[in-house]
Amino acid sequence: IGNSITGVSTVVRDVIKVGKDDPRRAVHSFKVGLALTLVSLIYYYQPLYTNFGATAMWAVMTVVVVFEFSVGATLSKGLNRGLATLLAGALGVGAHHLACLSGKIGEPILLSFFVFLQAVATTFMRFFPEIKARYDYGMLIFILTFSLVSVSGYRYDEILTMAHRRFSTIFIGGATCVIISIVVCPVWAGEDLHNLIALNMEKLGSFLEGFGDEFFRTSADTDWDTAEKRKCLRGYKSVLGSKSAEETLANFARWEPSHGEFRFRHPWKQYLELGALTRECAYRIEALDGYLNVNVQVPAVAREKIEGACREVSSEAAKALKEMAVSVRTMTRQAALADTDHLLVDCHGAVKDLKALLKASQWKETDLLAAVPLFTVTSLLIDVVECTEKIAESV
Amino acid sequence: IGNSITGVSTVVRDVIKVGKDDPRRAVHSFKVGLALTLVSLIYYYQPLYTNFGATAMWAVMTVVVVFEFSVGATLSKGLNRGLATLLAGALGVGAHHLACLSGKIGEPILLSFFVFLQAVATTFMRFFPEIKARYDYGMLIFILTFSLVSVSGYRYDEILTMAHRRFSTIFIGGATCVIISIVVCPVWAGEDLHNLIALNMEKLGSFLEGFGDEFFRTSADTDWDTAEKRKCLRGYKSVLGSKSAEETLANFARWEPSHGEFRFRHPWKQYLELGALTRECAYRIEALDGYLNVNVQVPAVAREKIEGACREVSSEAAKALKEMAVSVRTMTRQAALADTDHLLVDCHGAVKDLKALLKASQWKETDLLAAVPLFTVTSLLIDVVECTEKIAESV
Repeated sequence: IGNSITGVSTVVRDVIKVGKDDPRRAVHSFKVGLALTLVSLIYYYQPLYTNFGATAMWAVMTVVVVFEFSVGATLSKGLNRGLATLLAGALGVGAHHLACLSGKIGEPILLSFFVFLQAVATTFMRFFPEIKARYDYGMLIFILTFSLVSVSGYRYDEILTMAHRRFSTIFIGGATCVIISIVVCPVWAGEDLHNLIALNMEKLGSFLEGFGDEFFRTSADTDWDTAEKRKCLRGYKSVLGSKSAEETLANFARWEPSHGEFRFRHPWKQYLELGALTRECAYRIEALDGYLNVNVQVPAVAREKIEGACREVSSEAAKALKEMAVSVRTMTRQAALADTDHLLVDCHGAVKDLKALLKASQWKETDLLAAVPLFTVTSLLIDVVECTEKIAESV
Repeated sequence: IGNSITGVSTVVRDVIKVGKDDPRRAVHSFKVGLALTLVSLIYYYQPLYTNFGATAMWAVMTVVVVFEFSVGATLSKGLNRGLATLLAGALGVGAHHLACLSGKIGEPILLSFFVFLQAVATTFMRFFPEIKARYDYGMLIFILTFSLVSVSGYRYDEILTMAHRRFSTIFIGGATCVIISIVVCPVWAGEDLHNLIALNMEKLGSFLEGFGDEFFRTSADTDWDTAEKRKCLRGYKSVLGSKSAEETLANFARWEPSHGEFRFRHPWKQYLELGALTRECAYRIEALDGYLNVNVQVPAVAREKIEGACREVSSEAAKALKEMAVSVRTMTRQAALADTDHLLVDCHGAVKDLKALLKASQWKETDLLAAVPLFTVTSLLIDVVECTEKIAESV
């Protein structure tokens, strides 16, 4: 009994965690339940059932398969499914009629041939990158509908009625999904993308903010404290691998109608570019992070000389990144531009100071080998500032 | 006419390109066509059709949806579909019987309640990361089958016969997919993962091989030549974003039976770890690459001093990476270990030389600011060697 209680409490904790991470998940679950229950009314309500009969199951099937987390994904799947069904249904009926002309023996042979040819061609088309990104599901439904309509035409005579009924139920299912996903607490992929990009920039900013303290930390600090702080700094790690998430969101966002501050043809591509630049900056930061892990003993003399300037560069870059994140988040391009420019000028100033320091100082007496990590960090910081500027240009 | 000819020729060129990139794609398309044609025989062959009737469409549907590019993906989907159908079918029949007990008015209400509850719970479970990775499709089919079986039970009395027929046809469809995907030119996700990991290591090796020449290039070289070479070096860029591809492949590979040199429980997780280390190395290389783009004017004096040592480090690291790639590819761990060790010793030697050089040389007269990029490159190269060693440990 003790074991099973622990088991249950673990599950409950997991459920609460998943729900808390993103409360919209729980809402989404209820939306799916609602859509499914609504659609299954076709079965219970006699006049509707008389009309559709067993094809009612296509409505249920459509809801289960089409309803996705975000509005964009649901719309993309729904439209793909609807259009593909329509097109493939028409072609399937055509293939059936053609095959009928060739007599009772030729019919199955010709039908098999059509199905085979269509499946081969469509499956191959699914490998095209552009088609895969946007119409993959439609292609699948095309194969499915064409095969079903043309082949089952061999057994039914009322193929047109069947195709018509099936399309109606699929339309009902798809429309239910789209309407519920838009009306009840909509989750917009575009908004998610927007927030993700801003969040990623903030994460980089947080790292740079803490980097100065961490790198020039005197060993007097307790280890526990360090471990805690480093965990905070590591937030940027997720930026390194966010490419595919961003691309998926951008793909869905393209399908979404205008909502809130986003127009229908919002320039989603620019978000991807911004994301790519942010990631480039993150790669440099990953290299910087490597120098936090190694216990390098930088000679005190060299350290003292450029510590201030390094901290300055790091914190100025952090400020600029965070400011840009805010301006992305609030989409206040014009107002924020002046602020950002101002911060970038500060950044530049800090880099210049650092460079001047490097040029002017007397380094003869320092142990160069030991100071190399310091220089590397310096140089990487300057790189980060350059990346930051590039990001600023495209914000 | 001219336009349409150009259009057609573009399409043809695209088709050839997609096919040439991976000829297995064309084979896969034919396999799908074959499976679909085989399964549609149920419709044409009278004894089979008498047995299954209209449920034959579930076989067609299963083939279209389950047949994936790799054996692992097909097996994963097929097993998910089969098990989920069985389980959900049983529960659906149970729910139907329970609902029947409550009389003609209570039945639809109770059924709706069951469907709603089940849809909410299962949809929420799909958000659990472990479930999402391996059983997402099964969950979808669970919702689908449970809803269809329990709700359509309201209209049919022979619900058991229906559920039984449906499961048989789904089993036939799934089995056809699995058998064809294994027997006819199988595409193993595990093998793909294996090759991807080795290829990624090779790509990093190629970059390091060319890096020395590129960085210490005298400006006398023609620009065209450089552009061409750099394009070659940039191969490593794909390594940066290969995380999700690796994870997907590893997920599929887990489902695959033993084949060739891979056992059933091949340690796929180790491949992921190796991939992560390779990527960490790639981040450093990305930072290195940044120094190829900027036209830095390193003072000749400083350059001459450490050029040789830098080149040495870079090429030794390249050799070690490539050797490790070969040993991963051929899985000749024991035999290759000695070679790799040997190469790593060389690597270490090169790094030591470089460090000694930095320590010993007189740097007074050089312009430190201008030499910083050089030091950074040096330091990053040393990092790369460290990453390489980590990779070597886990090969």
